[in-house]
Amino acid sequence: MECSVVLPLQGAGVVGTRPRGGGPVQAFWRADRRRRRLASAVAPARCSKMYVPGFGEGSPERKAATNLQHFFNYVAVRVVLSQLESYNREAYYELKEFVSRTSLNDAEIFCKKLIRESPRLKGLAMRILEVRSAYVKSDFEWDNLKKLSFKMVDDANTKLMRDYVLEVSHIED
Amino acid sequence: MECSVVLPLQGAGVVGTRPRGGGPVQAFWRADRRRRRLASAVAPARCSKMYVPGFGEGSPERKAATNLQHFFNYVAVRVVLSQLESYNREAYYELKEFVSRTSLNDAEIFCKKLIRESPRLKGLAMRILEVRSAYVKSDFEWDNLKKLSFKMVDDANTKLMRDYVLEVSHIED
Repeated sequence: MECSVVLPLQGAGVVGTRPRGGGPVQAFWRADRRRRRLASAVAPARCSKMYVPGFGEGSPERKAATNLQHFFNYVAVRVVLSQLESYNREAYYELKEFVSRTSLNDAEIFCKKLIRESPRLKGLAMRILEVRSAYVKSDFEWDNLKKLSFKMVDDANTKLMRDYVLEVSHIED
Repeated sequence: MECSVVLPLQGAGVVGTRPRGGGPVQAFWRADRRRRRLASAVAPARCSKMYVPGFGEGSPERKAATNLQHFFNYVAVRVVLSQLESYNREAYYELKEFVSRTSLNDAEIFCKKLIRESPRLKGLAMRILEVRSAYVKSDFEWDNLKKLSFKMVDDANTKLMRDYVLEVSHIED
């Protein structure tokens, strides 16, 4: 989460200067007001985001993206397997056997092992890399993900509260 | 992933009928061509998305959104804990103690238990529900997530291939 708090532009010699000596005080205050008005016009609204601790140098978005990478790799493996199933049974069984004994939890470790397994699996690994890139960029419906997430959080909140109210008020469902 | 393949509109009595008896063959073919042209004008472009098996009645987007819900709940707990830390130490320690003995892997089970734990924790649970909803809808940077995912998949693919080439060609890094 990058939070862009932009401070009002302050000219080195403009803000913070006070009229030296016998300058008219009235004029100073007027100029100061004008400067403040100018600054508030230049400065964007203050960042009103919640502070999320615990992500060190990363961000919640980076953490979520990292987790999605593993998921996209899993999807790519499923896509390639289903493609192979219909026209190359031998390769299909070889990849299926590899998947059955290798964890898909870490996408990079999985692909690293797959590339080094056999010449045929190296070719399939290249295809998985291609498929996951194409899937992320063209097929995955990002807008749908956002829409579903909005709906899910509302539904889950309503359900939790309704269940609790039903429980404590002893109303039969 | 919802794939909207719309079949050409076929009037019950139009497509599939053949001229019975001695109708002019030439006229039949011309009418058939016209029908086909009409159908291709009505039907949208074919769905060119990859077939992703294994999600049953759901979709990869729904699966990803479900996983993100648990993550957003985790973020909301962190946010509330960090807010409490500065102004209500008692509630902070109570929530922290609860978090230490309850898994955050399943957001709904966590919240369900939290609501029923004690009156104070019930209040905090309500706040967590509110925070996670606000976070999903306002604070979380969805565009950033997409951008990061695009970059990550490219970077990971390049790294995997480069590492492999370096390894097999025995080039010193």
